[in-house]
Amino acid sequence: MSRFWHPRVARLHPYVPGEQPKMERLVKLNTNENPYGPSPRVVAAIQAAAEAGMQLYPDPEAMALRTAIAEFYSDFGITPAQVFVGNGSDEVLAHAFHGLFRQDAPLLFPDISYSFYPVYCTLYEVPFETIPLDDAFAIRLADYEGDNGGIIFPNPNAPTGRALPLADIQGLLERNTDSVVVVDEAYVDFGADSAVALVNRFPNLLVTQTVSKSRSLAGLRLGLAMGHPDLIAGLVRIKDSFNSYPVDRLASAGGIAAFADRGHFERNRRTVMADRERLTAELAGLGFEVLPSAANFVFARHPRRAGADLARALRERAVIVRHFDRPRIADFLRITIGTPEQNRAFLSALEDALAQP
Amino acid sequence: MSRFWHPRVARLHPYVPGEQPKMERLVKLNTNENPYGPSPRVVAAIQAAAEAGMQLYPDPEAMALRTAIAEFYSDFGITPAQVFVGNGSDEVLAHAFHGLFRQDAPLLFPDISYSFYPVYCTLYEVPFETIPLDDAFAIRLADYEGDNGGIIFPNPNAPTGRALPLADIQGLLERNTDSVVVVDEAYVDFGADSAVALVNRFPNLLVTQTVSKSRSLAGLRLGLAMGHPDLIAGLVRIKDSFNSYPVDRLASAGGIAAFADRGHFERNRRTVMADRERLTAELAGLGFEVLPSAANFVFARHPRRAGADLARALRERAVIVRHFDRPRIADFLRITIGTPEQNRAFLSALEDALAQP
Repeated sequence: MSRFWHPRVARLHPYVPGEQPKMERLVKLNTNENPYGPSPRVVAAIQAAAEAGMQLYPDPEAMALRTAIAEFYSDFGITPAQVFVGNGSDEVLAHAFHGLFRQDAPLLFPDISYSFYPVYCTLYEVPFETIPLDDAFAIRLADYEGDNGGIIFPNPNAPTGRALPLADIQGLLERNTDSVVVVDEAYVDFGADSAVALVNRFPNLLVTQTVSKSRSLAGLRLGLAMGHPDLIAGLVRIKDSFNSYPVDRLASAGGIAAFADRGHFERNRRTVMADRERLTAELAGLGFEVLPSAANFVFARHPRRAGADLARALRERAVIVRHFDRPRIADFLRITIGTPEQNRAFLSALEDALAQP
Repeated sequence: MSRFWHPRVARLHPYVPGEQPKMERLVKLNTNENPYGPSPRVVAAIQAAAEAGMQLYPDPEAMALRTAIAEFYSDFGITPAQVFVGNGSDEVLAHAFHGLFRQDAPLLFPDISYSFYPVYCTLYEVPFETIPLDDAFAIRLADYEGDNGGIIFPNPNAPTGRALPLADIQGLLERNTDSVVVVDEAYVDFGADSAVALVNRFPNLLVTQTVSKSRSLAGLRLGLAMGHPDLIAGLVRIKDSFNSYPVDRLASAGGIAAFADRGHFERNRRTVMADRERLTAELAGLGFEVLPSAANFVFARHPRRAGADLARALRERAVIVRHFDRPRIADFLRITIGTPEQNRAFLSALEDALAQP
């Protein structure tokens, strides 16, 4: 606390990201990073961009990148005017909280969800109400139809990994027409249907995505949103009142290459999904309840061992997973899908931990 | 305007950055970019960083980068806890407006200054009052000693290029002890004395800088602030409630190399300063009044030709400079120092334009 802080600074409860340990040789399955590198075309594009022009500002409108993203989604009829880009999807979400959610009714989001949402609410003074997941830890969109100043949920949800059918999202949008609905698709490419398919039908739908997960570029910081041009224009007004050039030349070049290389993207996500199914079966074999996942992680609990204890026992064995010390989910572990070697190391450490009383 | 915007979105007057023209072969002297590329060590560091680890998040604390910056300023006793980094100095400034300026008294800044300041004030609802430059277009800090919720000014100022003596800044800090004073040093390396020298004496001083100008990295988006650890902690709380990882792996690697290569930095800035003195003399020879500049641009007006007309005539001759259609400065042109070839092309186009009635 400092007398030079605005009172709002003291009121904040900042988000705590998963640990980025300095230790080498850890099996790191705690922040849902992709275990494989990005497309070689991405690396080449970044290296070429570094060679020339770094003394010049990027295009403040990032038009080449927005065009590449629109082309990736051309089956859904997406145009560059329907695409917004930012310095990671967290920045894109922040602008949406600041500019698109109303303050005269509560924002609705799941009680168990991305823990950054309430942080944004405090930062921008957005009132909110959390809606409980059902007993199977699924989002029930019928519960989101009350008076609200906006709705946001991840699909698939994190940290549960559970996906919603697109028909449910469409039903919500048909009934909720007076506030903005944000579908946060950070993990969508690992097995859920994208709501980008609905962007041209619902002017109040904003879909956010990231290159951090399915395009193996958490280190690049690039996020995006797709929606009606008026929603995008609102985000642009916030962005242009905050930072004219949030996407640097290297992120732009890398992002364009990432959306262009469909082959690498498809192979990568299919590998992760196949390994997820194997890991799910093996965890079930060890007695775990594993929620059905459409993400690059699984959320699992053991009927007889506390989550905190297992997380600690794994850490002692040089494996880190994410544990949330929160109601309803304190006995779960969130385990990122790693390489086959990492997954084996995790399972072996886990078997060892379970064998200890 | 959209019914899905928060009312604050409609109220914004977003910042308009200098044009980034798509045309080739323009002599582009409008956005104060460095005419030379960054250190080759920066390019090599970025290219190496792109090769491995891009699928992993950056260090959310950017400790290696903050350490490199603290080392650069070790003569002033700066430690990493006194350094904040962000996605360009515009983002760093935005967080300062959001978290460090009070709302119970007006923020003070010069009437002619960086035109992003009033934009941030609207975004974060910070009341402000502008203080006129004196008749020589200099900041007079004695005018900033009234009741205020904060003070911000660039040193050297933009778009005038005029620098303040460090003793004047010290005097202000000795008398203004109850609100935060931000010295925005985007251009400081081209001839002004840095207030980083005062950071260890005044707990309410924040100094912001960028790698965009003197380190030739406008395309990288990396800005920084130095101040008391409590001020830095306040900025970190805002940042961690907005975006955990604003500085990507490539910007971190490039930034570390940029602060390490003192030789390139010194040669670059001395070249630009020498070319500025030549250009100033040549403009004076053409009858221009040129304000004394400590930046990588000059601000100049002709006694008999309107600024808007000259800017237009230059553009017709494929040279772009920045013109602000605003009171007091409408007859000035802001001309970025280019390469000797660019400066000659500018002067030649200017002579041609002046020869036309």
